[in-house]
Amino acid sequence: MDVGTLVADARRGRPRAVARLITLVENAAAVPGGDERLREAMAAFATATGPGASGGGRGPYGARVIGLTGSPGVGKSTSTGMLIRAFRKRGRRVGVLAVDPSSPFTGGALLGDRVRMQEHATDPDVFIRSMASRGHLGGLAWATPQALRVLDAAGCDVILVETVGVGQAEVDVARLADTTVVLLAPRMGDGIQAAKAGILEVADVFVVNKADHDGAQALVRELRNTVAPLRGPWRPPIVSTVASRGEGADDLLAALDKHTAYLDESGELRRRRLARARDEIETIALARLRARFAPEGRERRLDFLAERLLAAETDPYTAADELLATLG
Amino acid sequence: MDVGTLVADARRGRPRAVARLITLVENAAAVPGGDERLREAMAAFATATGPGASGGGRGPYGARVIGLTGSPGVGKSTSTGMLIRAFRKRGRRVGVLAVDPSSPFTGGALLGDRVRMQEHATDPDVFIRSMASRGHLGGLAWATPQALRVLDAAGCDVILVETVGVGQAEVDVARLADTTVVLLAPRMGDGIQAAKAGILEVADVFVVNKADHDGAQALVRELRNTVAPLRGPWRPPIVSTVASRGEGADDLLAALDKHTAYLDESGELRRRRLARARDEIETIALARLRARFAPEGRERRLDFLAERLLAAETDPYTAADELLATLG
Repeated sequence: MDVGTLVADARRGRPRAVARLITLVENAAAVPGGDERLREAMAAFATATGPGASGGGRGPYGARVIGLTGSPGVGKSTSTGMLIRAFRKRGRRVGVLAVDPSSPFTGGALLGDRVRMQEHATDPDVFIRSMASRGHLGGLAWATPQALRVLDAAGCDVILVETVGVGQAEVDVARLADTTVVLLAPRMGDGIQAAKAGILEVADVFVVNKADHDGAQALVRELRNTVAPLRGPWRPPIVSTVASRGEGADDLLAALDKHTAYLDESGELRRRRLARARDEIETIALARLRARFAPEGRERRLDFLAERLLAAETDPYTAADELLATLG
Repeated sequence: MDVGTLVADARRGRPRAVARLITLVENAAAVPGGDERLREAMAAFATATGPGASGGGRGPYGARVIGLTGSPGVGKSTSTGMLIRAFRKRGRRVGVLAVDPSSPFTGGALLGDRVRMQEHATDPDVFIRSMASRGHLGGLAWATPQALRVLDAAGCDVILVETVGVGQAEVDVARLADTTVVLLAPRMGDGIQAAKAGILEVADVFVVNKADHDGAQALVRELRNTVAPLRGPWRPPIVSTVASRGEGADDLLAALDKHTAYLDESGELRRRRLARARDEIETIALARLRARFAPEGRERRLDFLAERLLAAETDPYTAADELLATLG
């Protein structure tokens, strides 16, 4: 199918076209910048995104991007499912992007918990996709914003980005979301430890899931004590949920709405989206440069330089310069 | 102090020089490729690293690089401490690099658990450093290999790289270590969930820590069932430890030695180090290119392009091309 038709169909919200475009993004992530069809699609979407393109008028996207992050086992997928239901009740069109930055080896892995979202499989206003990072060096940082553009163009009002794991992924999701939700659960060894890992800085909203388990109150108290001294205009609210039973959905939506209002009023939304646009441009630029290294035989050239580095015949900077000299 | 003296002192294993050089790496990570003093140091080390430079003769480094990864709370720092003691008993010089990829906001954060390693503070044959990622776009991918070069040049026989969190960090540590140890603990919600996150693919050795806790045996069984069907010449052993009491240290060392022997015999060590050298060269090359974007006013240029992208006046690829056109 030609790109023009795909783009037109995606803008009409046709699931197959949306899926095929995200697959285009995912496959191109292996050699970022190498796919001219993707470029064509993104150029076509550029006029489709933006205020008014899909309603909402909150800036570059019509869609509001909500990131969900937390350690394995805290209930991210269940919480995502809860949010899908809650936003659907409001009549919103919902996109879900589950990014799995630790699966470069398996490629395209469908996260197991995705099955819990099967109930939405026949809902034409819910788009759910997993996306694995095929490459390294920022493959996902490169691919995720483009997948968001596809879902936005398909008219999603809300896009939930679910990411696996604490660490870099956590920070990355904060860089591309308007609102970042950090999930914790009692007795996961997650309280203070997680706070140390930089989680405080990226959370706009905390969710203590499995709030019916022992230790939930203690975790809420611990979070409250940690959040209390935070300065700045926004102090992340702490919402208790039992996502498996849908408990706390209204509280969570209220907290999310409050943050959206804050983003609008403070000008923070514009600042965040500007930073995101900068990242997006720079990441694509670097990917395109990388694709131009040693056009006459990129792999062979890199192997040759790596061999010399291993043999201590060169240093990494000189080897890098030699690679740069091959820029086609 | 001039770089030549720093390098000479580091090669004599002087802790202050080692620390200052790693700080040089860490600071340069904010603007990778921008520091000519670092480049000079790395060039000087190029002849110092390699077979015979610091004993061992196992390839590019004398040092054997062991990565430790796992979710917060599994006991990574305690296990690192246990390994330091075990290797010191064998008379090995040990370097520890604790990388915290989720702390770009705090910068240079000394991980709290580092205090547990205070017992080695006066040991001249133990070097311990935390390193935070100041930037994004691969800041740590760029900095870690260079910090390893410093520790290697200082004559470390073993370098333990401890990383925070599952996700991208987990994969990154596997890309730069000779041997990757994945730690799990019972009742962390980590069993099957962690396996889903791609942990199986990167583990050379599994450690079930807190083996005295309920559920440890079940976790070992679960891992055994998951590992059993794995094909390939190396099946990751599963070691049970109680790191806080030093229990299992000998078993873990034996598993690590077995993997080292396998790496040598199979040629896998060379393959891994070649892949690592390629990554290192390419990452430096990209960082140097990035530093050359829009030399007349990089920030202003990026802001301008980001504004236009937000206003839907351009698409990300065209904006990236405009950025590339400014390459100085």
